[in-house]
Amino acid sequence: MNIVCISIGNELLNGEITDTNKRWLGRALHEAGYTLTEAITIGDDSARIRATIEYYIAGGYAIIATGGLGPTGDDITARAVAQAFRLRLVLNDEALVMVRGFFQRMGNPCPPGNEKQALLPQKAQVLENSCGTAPGFFLRHNDIPAFFLPGVPLEMQTMFARQVLPRLRTSVPAQENIPSKTLYTFGISEAELEQRLSRLHFKDQIQLRYRLDGPQVLVRIEALSGGIDALNSAGALIKHELGLFLLGEEPATLPEATASALCHSGLCLALAESCTGGLIAKLLTDQSGSSAFLERSAVTYANSAKRDMLGVSVQVLMQHGAVSRECAAAMASGIRQRAKTDIALAVTGVAGPNGGSAEKPVGTVFIALATAKGTEVRDFTFSGDRAAVRKYTAYAALDWIRRVALQQAPVSRIQ
Amino acid sequence: MNIVCISIGNELLNGEITDTNKRWLGRALHEAGYTLTEAITIGDDSARIRATIEYYIAGGYAIIATGGLGPTGDDITARAVAQAFRLRLVLNDEALVMVRGFFQRMGNPCPPGNEKQALLPQKAQVLENSCGTAPGFFLRHNDIPAFFLPGVPLEMQTMFARQVLPRLRTSVPAQENIPSKTLYTFGISEAELEQRLSRLHFKDQIQLRYRLDGPQVLVRIEALSGGIDALNSAGALIKHELGLFLLGEEPATLPEATASALCHSGLCLALAESCTGGLIAKLLTDQSGSSAFLERSAVTYANSAKRDMLGVSVQVLMQHGAVSRECAAAMASGIRQRAKTDIALAVTGVAGPNGGSAEKPVGTVFIALATAKGTEVRDFTFSGDRAAVRKYTAYAALDWIRRVALQQAPVSRIQ
Repeated sequence: MNIVCISIGNELLNGEITDTNKRWLGRALHEAGYTLTEAITIGDDSARIRATIEYYIAGGYAIIATGGLGPTGDDITARAVAQAFRLRLVLNDEALVMVRGFFQRMGNPCPPGNEKQALLPQKAQVLENSCGTAPGFFLRHNDIPAFFLPGVPLEMQTMFARQVLPRLRTSVPAQENIPSKTLYTFGISEAELEQRLSRLHFKDQIQLRYRLDGPQVLVRIEALSGGIDALNSAGALIKHELGLFLLGEEPATLPEATASALCHSGLCLALAESCTGGLIAKLLTDQSGSSAFLERSAVTYANSAKRDMLGVSVQVLMQHGAVSRECAAAMASGIRQRAKTDIALAVTGVAGPNGGSAEKPVGTVFIALATAKGTEVRDFTFSGDRAAVRKYTAYAALDWIRRVALQQAPVSRIQ
Repeated sequence: MNIVCISIGNELLNGEITDTNKRWLGRALHEAGYTLTEAITIGDDSARIRATIEYYIAGGYAIIATGGLGPTGDDITARAVAQAFRLRLVLNDEALVMVRGFFQRMGNPCPPGNEKQALLPQKAQVLENSCGTAPGFFLRHNDIPAFFLPGVPLEMQTMFARQVLPRLRTSVPAQENIPSKTLYTFGISEAELEQRLSRLHFKDQIQLRYRLDGPQVLVRIEALSGGIDALNSAGALIKHELGLFLLGEEPATLPEATASALCHSGLCLALAESCTGGLIAKLLTDQSGSSAFLERSAVTYANSAKRDMLGVSVQVLMQHGAVSRECAAAMASGIRQRAKTDIALAVTGVAGPNGGSAEKPVGTVFIALATAKGTEVRDFTFSGDRAAVRKYTAYAALDWIRRVALQQAPVSRIQ
């Protein structure tokens, strides 16, 4: 059966707040074995509320609506629902007891505005709200359920679990969820990924979906038949095919995968950041336990800081400039020497929007990696605004570190 | 005219990700003088995409749709749109040049999967995507515009500003909005804010709304009558009442306000970060022009880094520990001495989840500020998880820097 979520409220349409209920309900339904078919957001407009509900009644959808049950003048859901269901709006005694009871428990008299919350469509079953004043309610169209809940997330969530899900289960059978898993990758595009995985020639049993998430690409594997075994064997083949492009299974962002690879490798790291201004260190230290591998990061915005903290020579800065292969190399080898770490990574570049030139436009970035074997420099040209250039730079740096750490034999195996 | 946003993608319905595009578009339209009438989310289902577009064409809605324009097999928007508009799907030469050009700029050949992105409905006008491979497109139904954009937020946002808004303005007149502005504050709670501003005794002309946004509190001022003059005079009174709690008018986050105050003050800053691991530097260097005031930041996770980069003595580390008033003070004065800056700020603390003790539980943080007058240390106990402790610490640090910079006479006035 199709299920629709209807979110009601002007504040959800003018960008004032994010509608977190939609995602929460989508996930909660998914976990309970249901699929949210669609979600719609409409304003505090009586005619649109009524028309939308009539549209989904006509389509035979189970309805979960949130919002517009409050005590103030712009809370008009109950009246519009009554119209859509061709029912009268009446004072519901059970709801009135609940509303008054809520204020009684708080030790306050019930304001008249709140008594309005007990005006519900005739035939509606009341749904108790243990966390707030607005009772929800429940109706049926041709035995298909329609739930109306307050929009306050905590109230909605509690009522969904206690009041909605048990009633949904009695009228709509849950499906067997399709076994699925998500793999996170970095350094390969969606199109290349699809081309590469098409070589595996999965039959109709396995469906693959691709999604770009920042600079990472996610592969969702769904086993349409064959159950968890089909999923696992497809997953194993795909992981093998992905090689070092694979960050891991959900949740595995590039910073997490890099921190994890560093932890396992036992390598100690120092950073020298110019254009990323601390972003690489921030992404690594977001991870708990990062003190085990990060000795330091020097955020060297000024040339004086590059000289003093990294030992970059005046000659390099004068002759090649702060954004250059030579400076990146000097930064990496300089910080490695001072920090006495196994590896050191340095970045310098033009994040923009200012500071670009014909020779070194905005987006020009040099990344250097110093190890006991020497120092290597790579150059990049990223497009996008300042935030994008900084993010792509940080991700390219993290991926380099991750690959070096993965190629190192794990500490635990060295005995 | 009614406007609908259509978000396309299964991942938006099963709770995998939050649809941030809806809120962003709602706000962007609002700021441009338009009202988003409704927003709908549907899955990667050709029949539903087609039926939804037909429904809104029939209702005379302007359409802004996002998602499903990627290079892989589950990206089916263009074909479904062609069906809804009764148009053939054809290879669009202009789009093909754009897709190939994107790869050319990156120095890569264009994979065949990506060439699929140039298959568009006949009559569609191509919308350039400067940040990604998927071109958008544009059609009309009875002179009403319909825009189809990629779902990747950065690409969508750039295209909305450059491609959508100018075309929307030529076909749909913007409305008069209620004059409103948002003030950003830091360091004062919603309840305190409401109490403080209730002293101003605004009549019904002015409506105030409060909203918590991370550690900042936003005050939205709406002039229900009296127009822009009423708004401005209420705004002036409120700003005066807020004093240093005011960060500014939208958009004015604490990092932006701090960077702006530093720029105006002419003060030069150095940072030493332990538990925030580069976050404070990252937040400041997010702002363009931060090289004017940030000399360096030393991310000193290890004690060796605290000694070497900041000159913290072994005695302080042994006697008081790395998380202590004494260590914070030594870090701040040490980095100030080495960086030769006007002010230096240092943080050290227990971000968690590990590392806490009975005496110094998770959330214990010391922040020190060193100036020519000496060094001051403040201690905090923040609650929440690692990310929350790091964020609150960074915000407390930024606010301290901001207040010091504001109390400094602006450089431009010293002549």
